[in-house]
Amino acid sequence: MRRIDFAVFGNSTALDHALADEVLTRYQAVRSETEQLCEPLAIEDYGIQAMPDVSPPKWHLAHTTWFFETFLLLPYLHGYRVFHPDFGFLFNSYYQTVGSFFPRPQRGLLSRPSVQEVYYYRAYVDKAMAALVDSADASQLDQIIFRTVLGMHHEQQHQELLLADVKYNFAINPLHPAYRAKLDRIEREPASLQWYEYDGGIHEIGFSGTGFAYDNETPRHKVYLENFCLASRLVTNGEFLDFIEDGGYQRADLWLSDGWTVVRQKNWQAPLYWKSLDGQWWIMTLAGLRRLDQNEPVCHVSFYEADAYARWRGKRLPTEAEWEVAAQDREPRGNLREAGFLQPVAAESVIQGEPDQLFGDVWEWTQSPYRPYPGFQPLAGALGEYNGKFMANQMVLRGGSCVTPQSHIAATYRNFFYPADRWQFMGIRLADDAN
Amino acid sequence: MRRIDFAVFGNSTALDHALADEVLTRYQAVRSETEQLCEPLAIEDYGIQAMPDVSPPKWHLAHTTWFFETFLLLPYLHGYRVFHPDFGFLFNSYYQTVGSFFPRPQRGLLSRPSVQEVYYYRAYVDKAMAALVDSADASQLDQIIFRTVLGMHHEQQHQELLLADVKYNFAINPLHPAYRAKLDRIEREPASLQWYEYDGGIHEIGFSGTGFAYDNETPRHKVYLENFCLASRLVTNGEFLDFIEDGGYQRADLWLSDGWTVVRQKNWQAPLYWKSLDGQWWIMTLAGLRRLDQNEPVCHVSFYEADAYARWRGKRLPTEAEWEVAAQDREPRGNLREAGFLQPVAAESVIQGEPDQLFGDVWEWTQSPYRPYPGFQPLAGALGEYNGKFMANQMVLRGGSCVTPQSHIAATYRNFFYPADRWQFMGIRLADDAN
Amino acid sequence: MRRIDFAVFGNSTALDHALADEVLTRYQAVRSETEQLCEPLAIEDYGIQAMPDVSPPKWHLAHTTWFFETFLLLPYLHGYRVFHPDFGFLFNSYYQTVGSFFPRPQRGLLSRPSVQEVYYYRAYVDKAMAALVDSADASQLDQIIFRTVLGMHHEQQHQELLLADVKYNFAINPLHPAYRAKLDRIEREPASLQWYEYDGGIHEIGFSGTGFAYDNETPRHKVYLENFCLASRLVTNGEFLDFIEDGGYQRADLWLSDGWTVVRQKNWQAPLYWKSLDGQWWIMTLAGLRRLDQNEPVCHVSFYEADAYARWRGKRLPTEAEWEVAAQDREPRGNLREAGFLQPVAAESVIQGEPDQLFGDVWEWTQSPYRPYPGFQPLAGALGEYNGKFMANQMVLRGGSCVTPQSHIAATYRNFFYPADRWQFMGIRLADDAN
Amino acid sequence: MRRIDFAVFGNSTALDHALADEVLTRYQAVRSETEQLCEPLAIEDYGIQAMPDVSPPKWHLAHTTWFFETFLLLPYLHGYRVFHPDFGFLFNSYYQTVGSFFPRPQRGLLSRPSVQEVYYYRAYVDKAMAALVDSADASQLDQIIFRTVLGMHHEQQHQELLLADVKYNFAINPLHPAYRAKLDRIEREPASLQWYEYDGGIHEIGFSGTGFAYDNETPRHKVYLENFCLASRLVTNGEFLDFIEDGGYQRADLWLSDGWTVVRQKNWQAPLYWKSLDGQWWIMTLAGLRRLDQNEPVCHVSFYEADAYARWRGKRLPTEAEWEVAAQDREPRGNLREAGFLQPVAAESVIQGEPDQLFGDVWEWTQSPYRPYPGFQPLAGALGEYNGKFMANQMVLRGGSCVTPQSHIAATYRNFFYPADRWQFMGIRLADDAN
Repeated sequence: MRRIDFAVFGNSTALDHALADEVLTRYQAVRSETEQLCEPLAIEDYGIQAMPDVSPPKWHLAHTTWFFETFLLLPYLHGYRVFHPDFGFLFNSYYQTVGSFFPRPQRGLLSRPSVQEVYYYRAYVDKAMAALVDSADASQLDQIIFRTVLGMHHEQQHQELLLADVKYNFAINPLHPAYRAKLDRIEREPASLQWYEYDGGIHEIGFSGTGFAYDNETPRHKVYLENFCLASRLVTNGEFLDFIEDGGYQRADLWLSDGWTVVRQKNWQAPLYWKSLDGQWWIMTLAGLRRLDQNEPVCHVSFYEADAYARWRGKRLPTEAEWEVAAQDREPRGNLREAGFLQPVAAESVIQGEPDQLFGDVWEWTQSPYRPYPGFQPLAGALGEYNGKFMANQMVLRGGSCVTPQSHIAATYRNFFYPADRWQFMGIRLADDAN
Repeated sequence: MRRIDFAVFGNSTALDHALADEVLTRYQAVRSETEQLCEPLAIEDYGIQAMPDVSPPKWHLAHTTWFFETFLLLPYLHGYRVFHPDFGFLFNSYYQTVGSFFPRPQRGLLSRPSVQEVYYYRAYVDKAMAALVDSADASQLDQIIFRTVLGMHHEQQHQELLLADVKYNFAINPLHPAYRAKLDRIEREPASLQWYEYDGGIHEIGFSGTGFAYDNETPRHKVYLENFCLASRLVTNGEFLDFIEDGGYQRADLWLSDGWTVVRQKNWQAPLYWKSLDGQWWIMTLAGLRRLDQNEPVCHVSFYEADAYARWRGKRLPTEAEWEVAAQDREPRGNLREAGFLQPVAAESVIQGEPDQLFGDVWEWTQSPYRPYPGFQPLAGALGEYNGKFMANQMVLRGGSCVTPQSHIAATYRNFFYPADRWQFMGIRLADDAN
Repeated sequence: MRRIDFAVFGNSTALDHALADEVLTRYQAVRSETEQLCEPLAIEDYGIQAMPDVSPPKWHLAHTTWFFETFLLLPYLHGYRVFHPDFGFLFNSYYQTVGSFFPRPQRGLLSRPSVQEVYYYRAYVDKAMAALVDSADASQLDQIIFRTVLGMHHEQQHQELLLADVKYNFAINPLHPAYRAKLDRIEREPASLQWYEYDGGIHEIGFSGTGFAYDNETPRHKVYLENFCLASRLVTNGEFLDFIEDGGYQRADLWLSDGWTVVRQKNWQAPLYWKSLDGQWWIMTLAGLRRLDQNEPVCHVSFYEADAYARWRGKRLPTEAEWEVAAQDREPRGNLREAGFLQPVAAESVIQGEPDQLFGDVWEWTQSPYRPYPGFQPLAGALGEYNGKFMANQMVLRGGSCVTPQSHIAATYRNFFYPADRWQFMGIRLADDAN
Repeated sequence: MRRIDFAVFGNSTALDHALADEVLTRYQAVRSETEQLCEPLAIEDYGIQAMPDVSPPKWHLAHTTWFFETFLLLPYLHGYRVFHPDFGFLFNSYYQTVGSFFPRPQRGLLSRPSVQEVYYYRAYVDKAMAALVDSADASQLDQIIFRTVLGMHHEQQHQELLLADVKYNFAINPLHPAYRAKLDRIEREPASLQWYEYDGGIHEIGFSGTGFAYDNETPRHKVYLENFCLASRLVTNGEFLDFIEDGGYQRADLWLSDGWTVVRQKNWQAPLYWKSLDGQWWIMTLAGLRRLDQNEPVCHVSFYEADAYARWRGKRLPTEAEWEVAAQDREPRGNLREAGFLQPVAAESVIQGEPDQLFGDVWEWTQSPYRPYPGFQPLAGALGEYNGKFMANQMVLRGGSCVTPQSHIAATYRNFFYPADRWQFMGIRLADDAN
C-alpha cells in the first residue's frame, strides 16, 4: 500500500468526497492495526514504562486518539464533546501551545484510566471521526483530509514506537517475556560487502509533489555532493563482533568525545540487548532471548557506536543527502513490518546490483544532524510543533525498519534520534569517499 | 484478636500440635485478609510504584509469599520445589545473605509475572504451608511455629504498607481514583487538649514474656526518666493549620537544619496529600479527595514537621520510653484497621481520664532515634536482617494507625521511618517536661 | 591550659574586670594560634574547598572573625562599623536568623576578598574586641564575657576543622603536598587489648558547674546503665587491616543497611586516606604520604565502618553515656594538638590500669545519635542555632583528637558528625556488655 | 599581524631557517602575551574554577606549556627531561591517546603546583623551545615549524578562554571584582539594520593554501546555496531587550524543545551576566558591573536564545557556509582583542556598504552543527584529537570576538560550542532567505 496522494483534490466535489471516503477507510485500517498490535499484550503490559524515553502501550493508544480529538474533532466537528475532561492533560505529548501536560517520565505511574476505558475512548473518537468525514463542510474538507492523513501517519509512528517500547519493557524483565512466541527467520549468508559509486554534483533531495509528506521533508532543494560510495548492504552482527573483539569499546581514539563519555558512564560493551551468557552472545528479540545470528544486520546501536564502527573500519557514515540520492528512485520495499519478521534479517546471498536493505530491517544512522532544509516552513499553529522544534542535538536516520509500516516510509522520510539512543531498530550502512 | 502466645509450647506434644493448628488457622486468615484488601484493585493498579519507597501491590502479594517459601518451606518441607526459579531474585526485598535481588526502584517496571500468576504462587505456597504444619517433625516444630508467626506479622506489616502505597499511587494520579467509594466518618469536636503527668524514675520498657515480639522490642530493660507530661490526644488538622497560617513552613528557626533543607528542596507547604483548591484545603483519602476536617488528627507529616510543630507550640515530642510507659498497661484498642475507617478520626468530645488515641489513628512520631536496646541480639541468620540493620538514621514511631491490624500492634511495638518520610499514616502527639 | 571558669563573676566589679582581662588575653592567644596554624600555607592553599563539607582556610579565618563582629561588636560596641558590608553575607555559615548566606559548596570559588584582606579583617576586629572589653558597660559584661568565650571555643573548633580540611584538600592533590615537612612519631607496640568493667545503675552525665560549656552538654541528668566494659585502648591500623583482609568491606551482613549502600556507592575498600601502592598500604598525613604503621590507632573511619568493625569483632561501640561515665573523673590529657604529633600515635606498651587514649588521638564514635538531653534548652536567639538544630541524623563522638586544642576538650564535650563522614580524625574504641 | 604562511618552506635551507626563526620570535611573543594577560590577577585568582566548563588561569598557563612539552620537546628535542613527572597527568586536557588526565571539574581544587612553579615551568619549556628551533634537524624542521605554529594558535585559543573564564569567575563573586579598573567604550547609535543579499549557487568554502589552518577548516569544498540575505550588523542589547519585554523567555513556541527545557531548568530570564537591580539592567564586564548600553551588541547568549530571538523576529541564523561566503574576501579586522575594548562595541552609525562587525565583537552563532567537511582528515596521531572528536552536539560560531587575537582569526575559522553555552563572548547576526 502506498501513501495517500492528494492530487485529485479540488478537481470536483465528487472526487473530493471519494478521497475523503478513501481516507476514512484507511483511517479505520490504521486504527485497527494499532489494536491488533496490542493483542498479544496482557493487561499488565499496557502500563509499563521502563525508562523515560519509552511510553506505556496504553499511553500510545490514548495519545494517538487524543491527536484526532484535538486536531480534528474539536475544531471541525460541531458540538463535539470530549470523552473525558482530563484526557487532554494526560495524553498531550508535548504540544506546548495546546496546554500543559502530565510529565513524560511518569506516564507509567498511572493505573487509571484503565485499559478498558482507553479502548472505549478509541471507539468514541473513531465514531466521531466517521461522523466528521461524512458531514464535513466542503470548505474544510481539505484541512480535514490533510490532518486525518497526518494523524494516521502519526499513529503509524506510534505503532512502531509501541513495538520498540514493548521490546524495551520486556528486555529489562528478568523473565524475558515474549511478545510473540516465535518469529520467522531467514538463515543465509549475505553476499560479501561491495561498494556502489555515485556521481556527485548538484542533486535534489526532499519532498515535492501531491502526496503526503511531513513538513520536515520539504522543500525539495538542491545540494552539492562529491562523488561517493555506498555499501551494498548493512553491517552484520558478525562484522560488529569483530569490532568488539578488537577492543572497539575500549579504544578512546575511535570515538567522538561525547560518545566516549557515554560508553564509560553506561559501561557499554556491546549493542543494546546483547547479552553474554556462558561465553555465548544472545540477543533479546520480540520473541524473547535467542542466540546471536552473525549474518543478521547489527541492530540497536547508537550513532556513537555506528560512527566508531565506521572509523574503525576506515569508512564513514553516509550523509542524509547521499542516502536519499541512492534511494530516491527505488520502491520502498524490504523487510518492513508487513513482512512479519519484526527483526532484521540477513541480506541476500548474491549481490543485488544496487544497495540491498535500503528500506526496512533497521533505520540507518546518517552523519547528518537533524536541521531544517533551506526554506523550511513548519506547519501553522500547534501542528508546527510536530517536527521543527526537535531540530537540535539529534541525528537523521533513513529507510525504516522491520517494525515500520510500508505505507508510512518513503525515500524522503527523515527520522531523528539523539546520538546516544539505541532502543529503536537502528543499524549501520557504511559509506566512503569515491577515489 | 490478640497476638499468638507461645506459652504452652513444650509442655506436651498434644499442646504443641494444637498450637500449630491454631497458627495455621491464623496463617490462613492473614493470607486471606491480604487478598481481601486487594479486591477493590483493578489489574492495572497491581503494578504501580509511584515512588521508590512504595511497592506495587503485586509485589507485596508475592514478597510475603516468598518469605514463607524461603524461611519455612525450603528449609523445613522435605522435597519442596520452588514455584518459579526466578522468584527468589524478583521478590527478595533486602535479605543480602539470602541472595541478590531486583533493584527496589524498578519494582513497578515488571508486567510479568502477571497478577494471576502471583495469585497462583500464593495458593501454591499456602498449600505447601498446610502440608508443612501437618507433617512437621517435632524437633522442628518450635522453629516452624515461630517463623510462621513471624511471617504472619511480616505479612500484616505489608498489609499496612499496601494500603499506604495504594493511597500514594492513587494520589499522584490526576484522576484521583478511590480505593473505596466511601469511607465512614465521625463528625465531632474533640475535647480541648489536656496534659497527663507521669512520674519519672526507673521504668522498664521492651518486651518480655511468652508471646510473639520482634527482636527489636527486646530485651526488656530499665530506663531512667524525668517526670513528664503527655498530651491527652493527637494534634488535629485545625491545630496544624494554625501552624501553617502562622508561617510555620517559612520560619527556619522552627526547624531542624536537615528538615529545613528538605522543606526548601521539596517546597513543602503543608502535610502530604493536602491540596489547596480555590482557597479551600482538601485532602486525599482512600476514598479520593475530600474537604479537610479540622477535627481529625493531622496525618502524613514527617518527623521534621512534627518536631517543628512541637517547637512552635513550645512543647516537644515524647521519647519512645515515655510513650511506652504511658501505654504499657493499656489494651491496644482504638481506630485500627478493623474499625474500618481507614482514615484517622476525631478524638472523643470528652476527656477520657487517660491519653486518648494512643493506639490507632496515626503512628506517633517520637523523638527517639531507632537504635538497639541495651543487650539487643538480632535473630540468627538471615532473619536477623529483618530489623537490626535499619538501626541508623530512622526515628521510632509508636501506637499503630487506622490501617494497622489489631492483632499486629502492641505497646512495645517499634515502628521506624526516616525523618523525611510522610506517606505512612503518621501524626503527632505532644509531650512536655513536668514542672 | 584549662577552660575558663566564670565562678568569680558577679562577686565584685574588680573581679569581673580581672576576669574580662583574662578572657581578652586568652582571646588574643586563640586568635593568634589560628594564624600560626596557617603559617605553613601558600597563598594558593587558602582558597581550596575540595568537597562541600570542607571550607577553605581563608573562609575559616574570616568566618570566626565574623562571629565576633556579629555577636559581640555589633550588639555591644557603640558606634562599631562593619569592616565590609558584604562580609556578613559571605562569612555567615548557617545562622538563618541573622540573614542569608553564600552557598556553602561554593566557598572555594571566591578569589576575593584576598588572603591579605582577610588578615586585615581579623586585625580590625581584634582591635575592636580589645576596645569592647576595655569599655564594656558593667550591665553587659557577663554577656560579653560569655559570648567571647563562646567565640573562642568556636574558633578552636574551626582550628581543628581547618587542619582536617587542609589534610583533605592536600590528599586529593596528586602531588600530595605536605602541611609540615615532617611529623614526629612514636614507634612502639601497644599493650594487647584488655577490658575494663564498669558498674551500671543510675549515673549522671552532662555539664553542670560554673565553667564554660556548650548548651548541648546541659543539663546534667541521670541515666540508667547496665554494667558494661570498655576496651583499654583504641583499635589499631593492624587490627583494622585484619577486618579488611577478612573481607569486611565485601560482607553485607556486617553492615547497617544505610552503611552498606554507602560502601557500594563510594566503593569503599579501606579507611579514607589509605592508599595501596605496589601491594603496600600507605596513608596520607599532614606530612604527606607515609607507610601505614600497624600500631597506630585507625583513623578516618566512618560510623558505619566503626560499627561494622565492632560487629565483626563480636563487640559494639560504647554509648555516649558509657564513655562519659568512664571519662568523667579523668584529666583531659593525651595526644591533643599541643602534643604536636598531628596524627594519632600508638598506645602505651604497658597496660595503664584505666582506659588509655580516652582523650586525644581520634574522636571516638559512640553508638548514640546526637539528640537533646532531657530538659535541654538552646541558647536564646541566633546563638541557639549553634548546636540544637543539628540534632538529627548525626552520631555523637567523644574525647577529642590529635588536632583538638587541650583547653577546648572536656569529658562532657559532645561532637557530632553524619555516620558516613570520615574526614575528621575519627576512630574506634570498642565496648561490650558485661557478663 | 597575519597568520604565519608556510609557503616558503622547502625552497631552500636558508629560507627554512629564516621561517623557523620567525616562528620562534612569534612563539615568544604569544607566550609573553599570555603572561601579560595574567598581570592583573591576584595569586588567589589563578586557582578559581567557578564551573566545570571554565579552567583556572593557572591551568591555562600550564596546559599550553604542556602542549609544547608533549608535542614538540619530547618527540624532537634529544635528551629533553620533563619539568615534573606528574604534570603530564595534571595538565593534559583531553588527549586520550597521550595518557590519563586529572578530572576536568576538579581543576580548581589543586593549590599546588603554585603559581610560581607554573611560571618556572613556562620558562623552562620556553628555553627548551628556543634550543629546539636552533638545533632542529632539517628532516624534522617542517613538523617542528608546523607544530609550533599549531601550539601558538592553541595558546591563543586559551588566551581567549582565559579572559572568558576570569570573567565568569569574577561574575559569580558577590564582590564583583574587576579584571581592569576601566574599559574604554564607544558611545554611538548604530545605523538601523539593513539587509545585504547574496547570490546562491555553487560556492567554495574551507581553507586551502600555504598558511596555517586547523584541520577542521579543510578541505576547501563546494557547497550549493540558495540566494540569501545577511543583516548589516549584530543584534543589539536594545533589540534583545524588546524580545525579553515581549515575553520571549516565557513563550515555548519560540524555542527549540531542548532549549525550552534549559530555559526552565536554569530559569533563564535574560542573557548571562545581565542583572536587574532596582528595575535597571546591569551587566558584568571585565571592568565589573556597569549599566546596560542598548547600542552594544548583545553578548553571552546561547544558541537557543539566538535561535529563539531570530524566530521571534521572523528571521533565522545564517549557515556557516553563508557566513563564510560573505566574509571570505574581507580582511579580518574589527573589535578584536588588540583593540583593547574587551567588550563588544556599538556598530557604526552609518551603513558600511557591507556587513559590519563580521570579525570581532562577538562570535556569531550559525545554525550549522559542527560536523566534518566532506573529505575531512584529522591530523595524524594524538593531534587528531584536537578538533575532530568534538564533531557532535555542538554548533559552529564564526568571526571571533573582542577577546580573540587578530592573528588567530580567519574567515575559514570554525569555532564550536554546545547550544546551551553562554560564557564565551557570543552573539547574534540575523540572516534571511532572499525573496
